[in-house]
Amino acid sequence: MASSKEIVQAVVNALTIEIEASGRHVHLTVEATQALFGPGHRLTAVRPLSQPGQFVCAERVDVIGPKGSFQNVAILGPERKENQVEVSRTDAVTLGLKPPVRQSGDLHGSCSVILRANGRELKLENGLIIAQRHVHLTPRDAERFGVRDGEVLGLKCLTDRPAVLMDTVARVSDKFATYVHLDYDEANACGWAKGDRGRLV
Amino acid sequence: MASSKEIVQAVVNALTIEIEASGRHVHLTVEATQALFGPGHRLTAVRPLSQPGQFVCAERVDVIGPKGSFQNVAILGPERKENQVEVSRTDAVTLGLKPPVRQSGDLHGSCSVILRANGRELKLENGLIIAQRHVHLTPRDAERFGVRDGEVLGLKCLTDRPAVLMDTVARVSDKFATYVHLDYDEANACGWAKGDRGRLV
Repeated sequence: MASSKEIVQAVVNALTIEIEASGRHVHLTVEATQALFGPGHRLTAVRPLSQPGQFVCAERVDVIGPKGSFQNVAILGPERKENQVEVSRTDAVTLGLKPPVRQSGDLHGSCSVILRANGRELKLENGLIIAQRHVHLTPRDAERFGVRDGEVLGLKCLTDRPAVLMDTVARVSDKFATYVHLDYDEANACGWAKGDRGRLV
Repeated sequence: MASSKEIVQAVVNALTIEIEASGRHVHLTVEATQALFGPGHRLTAVRPLSQPGQFVCAERVDVIGPKGSFQNVAILGPERKENQVEVSRTDAVTLGLKPPVRQSGDLHGSCSVILRANGRELKLENGLIIAQRHVHLTPRDAERFGVRDGEVLGLKCLTDRPAVLMDTVARVSDKFATYVHLDYDEANACGWAKGDRGRLV
């Protein structure tokens, strides 16, 4: 039999969504992967992510901007149709770039950046963005929360430094698991800790 | 005669408060100033801050934590009764420290850190905090907004990535000018730009 504490937790969980913080990371095409890691190379999964089929790779890459760089940045697989580099605004200042805030996959106006691995260098003409905060939803959860794909919502972060983050985009797909994704500027501004949850408002 | 645009702007200004972003910085006692910069030394003002009597100093200091450090960090004068180092949570991760979120002057549970300048080193036993977001108010503006000293408010940031930051502390004094102070995690999470304003909610 469930304790009253377990029942309260179940209700809270039903009304809220787990928040994950995404550090800076890179998505590569097959071509870019092979340009950096050698002909025929495919990305090597070392740890699954919360989104089905997505993984952290064994391969790492340096991200080099006009004013600064980051070493050993995570690559998230599998390979994609477009190269994309996602950084926080704090990271962008370090790199010396002013990328737009964009949904993943929308590279309009994104920045050029240089990637380096194994002594090989690859210049991306564009692809560096600040990812817009977003919530991945399964169709079932989207229906439960009354949310449509592309809808822009507020997210009440139930965190140590609580905040309502407006302009949080809902993305609905049966390929997703239901999680909020913030960057580390947002996560730190909210005092986020692993396991913290938020409510769509 | 005022244009309608000027009138709208005057109304917006009357309902909102300018937001400033504070980078990492250090406040020093007279004793710490002299330990780092030599006997008899007093801090040298080079640029006034928005708060009356406060200034950026010519002197700079390195802030050294167990895992990382920052070079040439700003010192804000004049000298104070206690040493205090204010960093963002992103900065704290770089330093390898887990400071609490505290109001300025409340150093309960704050972190130890090493300061270095001119080859001289000074270990602070405590004093490093993440400053709680806050709004400085003149007594006249506090009355106008209906806010008391110490009251905890929401701040709707009218910025590129809008957010309502809860847990914003009101500090009222006739020594203050009316400004909101965020750290750079918060400013970047909101897409803040110089001149942006917020509304207390």
